[in-house]
Amino acid sequence: MANHTLLLLSQDKAEYQTLLQQAYLPGLTVLAPDNEADIQAALSRADILLGEPDKLRARQKEARALKWAQSTYAGVDALLDPHARRDYQLTNIRGIFGPLVSEYIFGHLLSLTRHLRHYKEQQRLHNWQPIPYQSLNDKTILIMGTGSIGQHIAHTAQHFGMTVLGINRSGREAAGFDNTYQLPALNNVLSRADFVVSVLPSTPDTRGLFDKARIEHFKPGSIFFNVGRGDVIDENALIHALRHGNVGAAVLDVFATEPLPTDSPLWDMPNVVITPHNSGYSFPEQIVTRFSRNYLKYINHQPMEGLVDFNLGY
Amino acid sequence: MANHTLLLLSQDKAEYQTLLQQAYLPGLTVLAPDNEADIQAALSRADILLGEPDKLRARQKEARALKWAQSTYAGVDALLDPHARRDYQLTNIRGIFGPLVSEYIFGHLLSLTRHLRHYKEQQRLHNWQPIPYQSLNDKTILIMGTGSIGQHIAHTAQHFGMTVLGINRSGREAAGFDNTYQLPALNNVLSRADFVVSVLPSTPDTRGLFDKARIEHFKPGSIFFNVGRGDVIDENALIHALRHGNVGAAVLDVFATEPLPTDSPLWDMPNVVITPHNSGYSFPEQIVTRFSRNYLKYINHQPMEGLVDFNLGY
Repeated sequence: MANHTLLLLSQDKAEYQTLLQQAYLPGLTVLAPDNEADIQAALSRADILLGEPDKLRARQKEARALKWAQSTYAGVDALLDPHARRDYQLTNIRGIFGPLVSEYIFGHLLSLTRHLRHYKEQQRLHNWQPIPYQSLNDKTILIMGTGSIGQHIAHTAQHFGMTVLGINRSGREAAGFDNTYQLPALNNVLSRADFVVSVLPSTPDTRGLFDKARIEHFKPGSIFFNVGRGDVIDENALIHALRHGNVGAAVLDVFATEPLPTDSPLWDMPNVVITPHNSGYSFPEQIVTRFSRNYLKYINHQPMEGLVDFNLGY
Repeated sequence: MANHTLLLLSQDKAEYQTLLQQAYLPGLTVLAPDNEADIQAALSRADILLGEPDKLRARQKEARALKWAQSTYAGVDALLDPHARRDYQLTNIRGIFGPLVSEYIFGHLLSLTRHLRHYKEQQRLHNWQPIPYQSLNDKTILIMGTGSIGQHIAHTAQHFGMTVLGINRSGREAAGFDNTYQLPALNNVLSRADFVVSVLPSTPDTRGLFDKARIEHFKPGSIFFNVGRGDVIDENALIHALRHGNVGAAVLDVFATEPLPTDSPLWDMPNVVITPHNSGYSFPEQIVTRFSRNYLKYINHQPMEGLVDFNLGY
């Protein structure tokens, strides 16, 4: 059997090493060196890399034997800049973040619609005062992106009785969505949505999609969620809309610059919720399960799961 | 056609009157008097009352023509004390609160598991710091009460990948539950549950069910939700368990005394969330739909929906 060498470049490499040793993958040597000399030696012989996209990007030029890189993230835009290599197979993680991101969306959404922050303040004052609310039932949600994460959010939204609209490249139907549309319909669909969720990756087609003119089509008082990539929206235009009520609130997990700079006005806005890019999380157990399945395909020259199209950007 | 008279005793009686006028119920006169003399006159002729249980209780002795009272709430314990009348048909509202209560449970649950309060505090400090979390997937939830509200919570829990256990009187199966048990199994089942939700009414069988000895069977760190009735649990024993970590957190919508007295230690406990008995809400449109359906059964001498068994207490 041919031998293969995996170099772990992840922040969680010790955990990955332990889990991979327990997976008994045939013909695979797993390296997780700490010092630079050992990393250089490993880079010269590893045909496989596993890690976060920014760590893969930093080391890819030195990876002389590279054939395949497994990203531990769904978003691989860090590996898609014009100067990045494209002479290897890049796989990302799809299909496991849906449940986590759906929990995030509905935790934050219900926290807003059911006034949890207000009740916390009332509790501090020992104040017993019901606040009127509306059900999610019969509300309309627009989900930008109808892939695995978008579909999971869509199913949850349908469970809560919502009308679920989606935007994707082709307008093709997707599980969990009542209707899907192509990008030219976006302004019209935006005006009907009580809640708008972007799970879009950063690609040439999506960057700046929500500019000032587009944001004017949001339904007044609507809630915007971004769990995709920050550069999909013009942050200054969003701030303006949030200050003037065109957008009611924003729940933001991703930003044009991360970590969000401490002087960003977003931090102090009462109708903005900021989380540090962790609506989904790459639990190593799940990543190793996916890597193991892909490894068996790799050594048998079969198409792997999550293969990224360098031109499409996902 | 025989004539019937409905006296509205609800806090929302003006809204009910408008909605009922638009329902064109055959042979029904609707009264919503404001002053005491008119109320007394109406009480002497009304065969039907509609209102909140405490308002029905306060007036039932004077309701000399009473045949049927429609409660706008699910919980009718205010009408079940030993001195209350039982010579009429009492119907409660079942089947409409499930979606609202389920939103409440999962909004608060995800707010806790996804650390929303901590992120709000970090946001105040402009602090970008991911906090580890776990998914709801594969967690175990125990729902006390497997009726319409319990089933709706159960379906939502299953949607989020949880194992759903239930307790009811007979141990009979219920939609959305993986397993149901009778009361004698409670201590054993409690120790397996990450989350415990009580939707129990106040009845002779449920009052004090969660006493000091029972609470010791909670899984350490578990989260307790009470959206049923406050007297199901010994509040002092719960406070003790919350202080010592036997119960991790409590989300309480109902209390032994409501409004919760301002000197209750619960208000200031960091692992307690207090809401003012509004996990569900009787939206008049929904109540009128139910009342209208029941009225047509009433005048045709058919069994009505939500008929309360005075002995069982629900």
